[in-house]
Amino acid sequence: MVTLSFHMTKIGIDIMGGDFAPLAALEGAILALDKLSDDSELWLIGDQLAISDLLQQSGIDSERVKIVPTTQVIGMEEHPIKALQSKKDSSLAVGFGLLAHKKLDVFASAGHSGAVMIGAIHSVKQIDSVWRPCVASAFPLPDGSKNILLDVGINVDCKPEMLVQFAKLGTVYAREVFGIENPKVGLLNTGSEESKGSLMYQKAHELLKLESSIEFIGNMESRDFFDGHCDVTVCDGFAGNLILKQTEAFYKLLKKRNIEDDYLNQFNYENYGGTPVLGVNGNVLLGHGISNANAICNMILAAEKVAKANLAEHIKKAFN
Amino acid sequence: MVTLSFHMTKIGIDIMGGDFAPLAALEGAILALDKLSDDSELWLIGDQLAISDLLQQSGIDSERVKIVPTTQVIGMEEHPIKALQSKKDSSLAVGFGLLAHKKLDVFASAGHSGAVMIGAIHSVKQIDSVWRPCVASAFPLPDGSKNILLDVGINVDCKPEMLVQFAKLGTVYAREVFGIENPKVGLLNTGSEESKGSLMYQKAHELLKLESSIEFIGNMESRDFFDGHCDVTVCDGFAGNLILKQTEAFYKLLKKRNIEDDYLNQFNYENYGGTPVLGVNGNVLLGHGISNANAICNMILAAEKVAKANLAEHIKKAFN
Repeated sequence: MVTLSFHMTKIGIDIMGGDFAPLAALEGAILALDKLSDDSELWLIGDQLAISDLLQQSGIDSERVKIVPTTQVIGMEEHPIKALQSKKDSSLAVGFGLLAHKKLDVFASAGHSGAVMIGAIHSVKQIDSVWRPCVASAFPLPDGSKNILLDVGINVDCKPEMLVQFAKLGTVYAREVFGIENPKVGLLNTGSEESKGSLMYQKAHELLKLESSIEFIGNMESRDFFDGHCDVTVCDGFAGNLILKQTEAFYKLLKKRNIEDDYLNQFNYENYGGTPVLGVNGNVLLGHGISNANAICNMILAAEKVAKANLAEHIKKAFN
Repeated sequence: MVTLSFHMTKIGIDIMGGDFAPLAALEGAILALDKLSDDSELWLIGDQLAISDLLQQSGIDSERVKIVPTTQVIGMEEHPIKALQSKKDSSLAVGFGLLAHKKLDVFASAGHSGAVMIGAIHSVKQIDSVWRPCVASAFPLPDGSKNILLDVGINVDCKPEMLVQFAKLGTVYAREVFGIENPKVGLLNTGSEESKGSLMYQKAHELLKLESSIEFIGNMESRDFFDGHCDVTVCDGFAGNLILKQTEAFYKLLKKRNIEDDYLNQFNYENYGGTPVLGVNGNVLLGHGISNANAICNMILAAEKVAKANLAEHIKKAFN
């Protein structure tokens, strides 16, 4: 008799994270359940009563859903390091513990973003040669492709060498998760000439030209961001955050003007789901604090893709 | 018998500046002529033959149009300082000379932006206590008001003290040109909390709180840029340039998606016309290099507003 060893992809969700937790997180998880592949499991980490009540109400009784009961919550206003140290039974601390012990293939949270970053760095640790983990956002382009922007907010004070690392991280992300063989990398800047931009960007341009593991195509003005010249656009976290949030501003304007357009509706933050934390020894997804059920659902689907691609493992290889 | 002394507002236009000069510049000037006030004069600075030919073809024979013949042109690829020094009879050098000698009330050019900045600083000079001149762009908001963003591209490496000066410059611009009594000033940033942003932005926030001549309301995320919280938003020239050009990117997307909307159509760069150079002892407008006739026309109308408000004089007072 043959026993088939079959690996289920275990997706851990912080049910207590986000402004509308636990309800939005639970509803999002339930929405995602139908869309996930049959070999994916959802591990719901949080208040047992809240979780089991909603599962029961929704008639969910699936072997692919596990509950990991926790009793504490890290609030949005708490100091991330202190909170993670003192609240050992918080959904965040427990989720990262499971990830570090390889009980989970990916952990996703829409909770306190500082605490998610600290949790990732303290539990699964940074990849040795990565200076600073970062987060990436994959912007939809009109032709259906993506422009992956990074860093979008973690590292607001950057050195040029960090931008080269972001380029490598983005390249692996584009290749392994979006299947782009040789991702073209641009440097966000104020003009196409090499001499453009701040001193930091001028130096980054020089270093990017020398980096053989990426396909650097030069500077990219924000005017051309959606034109499909690049698959990956690198910048410091301050600039990336401005670009990300101006896209939200633009979406708000479209709603205010009652404009409906299938492509432009993708700028709704809900569709982004979550951004992977790149440069740590584990697959971590960071969701938007204001996530509703739909956004959580998309975060979970993004987490599944990242886990099935085993993104963190590929990044480790690229940096060794 | 009484002789009325009547001041005509003299608007100098660099007819040779811009990618489509001299034709676009001339056509723009002709378009503007009907829209300018009766006490405004247009001084067309450039190739005499080209100017007189087109005026004749268009049947323009007005005492309010003067030709200032010049024989040289500063190209977009030239070194700005060398070009201004060697080409004394270029439209740019002559225009700035007339401005410095107070023959013009304002000078506007869509030519080489570096040469326009250098020309302004060398001819009319910086205002003594202004560290660095900057340029501002007035973004249209849905309610008809403006959000004036500065710097939008000149100073890509900034010190916190410069952002405080930009706040003062923007405040005078908003008050004198747009008639906003007490302009609310925001600091572009990645979050609303004081501790957000790079070290430079954190320090700028501290200094802005202490500046009594402005109405500082705190940080402004790009997500809320069009929501009308601020009249003036300050940032370094790198960040401002990204925001300005991402707005152009959105406009391009709208066109690609065949979306027509009266408000959003204002994001067409043509409607911005030109940005005033703030912090020099004279009224200078810098146009977009790719300006077509319509953009030039709007640059001229903006120049008239700046000249009639005598913006440079008000800024000088505010800094003394």
